Amino acid sequence: MTESTDRLAIRELFDAYAHCADRRDAEGQKALFTVDTRFAVYMDGEGTEPTYVLDGREALAPVFADLNRYDVTTHFNGQSTVTIDGDRATGESYTIAHHVYTEEDRRKIMIASLRYLDTFVKLDGGWYFAERNLIVDWTETRTQEET
Amino acid sequence: MTESTDRLAIRELFDAYAHCADRRDAEGQKALFTVDTRFAVYMDGEGTEPTYVLDGREALAPVFADLNRYDVTTHFNGQSTVTIDGDRATGESYTIAHHVYTEEDRRKIMIASLRYLDTFVKLDGGWYFAERNLIVDWTETRTQEET
Amino acid sequence: MTESTDRLAIRELFDAYAHCADRRDAEGQKALFTVDTRFAVYMDGEGTEPTYVLDGREALAPVFADLNRYDVTTHFNGQSTVTIDGDRATGESYTIAHHVYTEEDRRKIMIASLRYLDTFVKLDGGWYFAERNLIVDWTETRTQEET
Repeated sequence: MTESTDRLAIRELFDAYAHCADRRDAEGQKALFTVDTRFAVYMDGEGTEPTYVLDGREALAPVFADLNRYDVTTHFNGQSTVTIDGDRATGESYTIAHHVYTEEDRRKIMIASLRYLDTFVKLDGGWYFAERNLIVDWTETRTQEET
Repeated sequence: MTESTDRLAIRELFDAYAHCADRRDAEGQKALFTVDTRFAVYMDGEGTEPTYVLDGREALAPVFADLNRYDVTTHFNGQSTVTIDGDRATGESYTIAHHVYTEEDRRKIMIASLRYLDTFVKLDGGWYFAERNLIVDWTETRTQEET
Repeated sequence: MTESTDRLAIRELFDAYAHCADRRDAEGQKALFTVDTRFAVYMDGEGTEPTYVLDGREALAPVFADLNRYDVTTHFNGQSTVTIDGDRATGESYTIAHHVYTEEDRRKIMIASLRYLDTFVKLDGGWYFAERNLIVDWTETRTQEET
């Protein structure tokens, strides 16, 4: 496996997370993580204490299930900068996550501007999330205008 | 041509569609498709009946011409996940299309959150859209605030 | 260095600009440019006269420092189409830049939909911005709704 193959696999891992989230494939989403993964969420931005930390792949299920309350979501992925060092890699990846829902007959959109600070590992030839630090840089909620 | 060259060509095809749309190069945009292409639009999301289907490259002209009613458009491309199998490939690609226009002296923006489910073919060394299924996941119209 | 290595380096240059902007690393951001770089800003879109032109890397400092008035920024990068010709390259790259700030106790977001028309050069094995033409296709300012 060359470095460019590794890069492609890591980019596909990042994008598979979005695909599984948006298609509500929670099992597929969990399978992208190592068994003993660590997932930390920073709702108040980088450099703060984590809002919560999930230890182990099984602990991710409620987070992914929580997406079911939205009518539709779009995890839109931007740049992903990755440094590979053998069977480990680290990266910073940008996502704007759009969550569409209905409240009192009005359509609303909550967007979260996210950066994932990840550690990836290669196991048996495949790449997995060993650690995800999800930084919420800002959020915005909008109500669809009456037309 | 190696797989990475094919991958680059398919990504450039995806991005050329956006470039031609935003620069109003309808001829260039048509040339990205096979002569007998099929373009289906799903305004109500995935798994519904197509809102309309265009058969053949020439049928695309009115769709592309329709962009001329906007002051400016931005077809912003995110992730594109592609599986290549010889001279054919399939993929899921995310775009948020921004359409800026003026109505009663107010500037408005209509955004459409899109996923393209594509089939690509390689002909004479170049890649083309053989089939595009445009899924409209959600749209939003916003009026620029008075300042 | 193969073409794919050059492509990766140029993409990483584009993404490093966003990273340095959002992390307020003005020194790192300046270091991405050639000493005699030219940076032109077109606030009224493509094909107009530049709103201003900065000559030389040192002239960039005030532009980057200006980001400090925002609470947080997100330079979200989309597609980047690059043509390489030896030690020079040109490209068109899409960014939506989000600027979050507070005004009269209300949180606001100004977004700018940008295209960078760049010329890159390779010097001593590394790629740099020799010329950036920043096209502002449109902007929008939004006030966070009361909840």
